[in-house]
Amino acid sequence: MTAQYDVAAIGNAIVDVISPANDAFLVTEGMAKGSMALIDDDRAAELYGRMAAGIETSGGSAANTVAGIASLGGTAAYIGKVAQDQLGDVFAHDIRAIGVQFDIPRLIDGPATARCLINVTPDGQRTMSTFLGASNQLTAADVDPDLITASSILYLEGYLFDPEAARRAFAKATAIARTNSRMIALTLSDSFVVERHRAALLGFIDSEVDIVFANEAEICALFETDDVNAAIDAMRGRANIAAVTRGEQGSTILAGDQIHQITASPVGHVLDTTGAGDQYAAGFLFGLARGRSFADCGRLGSLAAAEVISHYGPRPQVSLKDLVAQAGL
Amino acid sequence: MTAQYDVAAIGNAIVDVISPANDAFLVTEGMAKGSMALIDDDRAAELYGRMAAGIETSGGSAANTVAGIASLGGTAAYIGKVAQDQLGDVFAHDIRAIGVQFDIPRLIDGPATARCLINVTPDGQRTMSTFLGASNQLTAADVDPDLITASSILYLEGYLFDPEAARRAFAKATAIARTNSRMIALTLSDSFVVERHRAALLGFIDSEVDIVFANEAEICALFETDDVNAAIDAMRGRANIAAVTRGEQGSTILAGDQIHQITASPVGHVLDTTGAGDQYAAGFLFGLARGRSFADCGRLGSLAAAEVISHYGPRPQVSLKDLVAQAGL
Repeated sequence: MTAQYDVAAIGNAIVDVISPANDAFLVTEGMAKGSMALIDDDRAAELYGRMAAGIETSGGSAANTVAGIASLGGTAAYIGKVAQDQLGDVFAHDIRAIGVQFDIPRLIDGPATARCLINVTPDGQRTMSTFLGASNQLTAADVDPDLITASSILYLEGYLFDPEAARRAFAKATAIARTNSRMIALTLSDSFVVERHRAALLGFIDSEVDIVFANEAEICALFETDDVNAAIDAMRGRANIAAVTRGEQGSTILAGDQIHQITASPVGHVLDTTGAGDQYAAGFLFGLARGRSFADCGRLGSLAAAEVISHYGPRPQVSLKDLVAQAGL
Repeated sequence: MTAQYDVAAIGNAIVDVISPANDAFLVTEGMAKGSMALIDDDRAAELYGRMAAGIETSGGSAANTVAGIASLGGTAAYIGKVAQDQLGDVFAHDIRAIGVQFDIPRLIDGPATARCLINVTPDGQRTMSTFLGASNQLTAADVDPDLITASSILYLEGYLFDPEAARRAFAKATAIARTNSRMIALTLSDSFVVERHRAALLGFIDSEVDIVFANEAEICALFETDDVNAAIDAMRGRANIAAVTRGEQGSTILAGDQIHQITASPVGHVLDTTGAGDQYAAGFLFGLARGRSFADCGRLGSLAAAEVISHYGPRPQVSLKDLVAQAGL
């Protein structure tokens, strides 16, 4: 059956609050640079009160990825939970405005829409503190079987391994995708997520996942090593495809017996790395859904990532489709 | 008495929603490029639903100005009304985070925090549609006499000539400023505001205002002429000081018998002109409060305006104080 969507994604639906910060601020607040920490409502209020003036923009890892796929000219649907509040309105508006199918019912009488407080240091690194709020209330009931069936690739966000109800949503979605011979992709999301759920993630990868996305810290955490190459080797045979993003060093793609080294696309000035991994996944998945070579999938990922780190905010600010055409890809 | 604040400002407290748009969209939506139109809640929902994905950022003309004054190293207080909602939290956080005194009680059980839907065309022009919401509910009770007394300059936003209660707040504040020999500044805000309140504005300028800020369209509207120079001439003798911003042509400052032509500061690429006039006023008022020459006030205004039009959003993204030091001003 021809798929109506290139990708259906499940993830934490989050609005980002992005402020500039210096390194001393991270130290004072006890935050590990480049990491994502979960915080509660009180801590969110306290931290926000000390952050610089910022901008608000729709985020959420898998949501950023489907936004990137839409910008590339692809088709995508999103499954995630926001509340019936102003930030929920912002999230729903932005993801629909870029052309992504999104019709998950709002959470009523629960916590507010999730916020990710992002402090961006002068080196462009982002350090994230997330109040999960409504996003954490996603359940299997939010997974529409027809939507999964209608999508070439099901893309899952590792962050959702934390809440039990969301893992049941994953199980429901993967079973439907499997039955309908759809590909299943997973991003490891964060090294702390991997630490918390290593065994469950490895089991899930072995039994269900065709494509794994990870950065160096995440793949090292998965295989409990400091050696990235050893970690990549350890991935062989566990998923059909693995794409490991390596910052300025580009990315490494394992595909069965093949290995591809992809160089990073040039960037004038790295302003804010928020969304780099998400946009790499967007380019890669779009390429895969459209039958491109693995090397081209990696190049599309690099190009999309390079655009997003040149400005504040985790989603493309220009048409990635135009950018791809200009690059002759 | 030495003033605690350089400037106390009264204005519409607004959160901006900034999205890219093409010229055809403005035509379809019946919007006049570069203007500000007032819209109701239904129209806001309808227009927002058709706009591209955007970013949310604190705005409001006079609020942008006091943010600029704080960024210049000045001291400022702000009087404006937001609701007890998420966008109200964003507004209050951002203006305090930049160092502006802001403690006006939130509006309870009224309309939501004001939003300005800003469509930015590829030429960098911004076209604004404002849902005034809670900002429109500012009253004289929100004007703290001590705060006006403690400020060198009282700065008023012409937009607030629309609601009756806010005009009473203006009257209260100007009376206190007058009694305490503080300077009173007014921005005309928008040519449509001038059309709606021409006689009242002229009467107010003649009786109360020391410093008038206007752009070319606004000063022409005030004196019902298409000739900017004739309009500037007509301003002579009506206020002690008038600063007319003229886009790429810089600005013209009338100060008693003096006239100063100030060139615009160079800008690499004009991305979004939102906040240009507000930041010009910030530089000018900061200079005036600190006893700088009129020409220097104009140069400070040009420098602040050049920074803000080089990026999306109506407030400085770098320290204007550092920028001024680099420029040897």
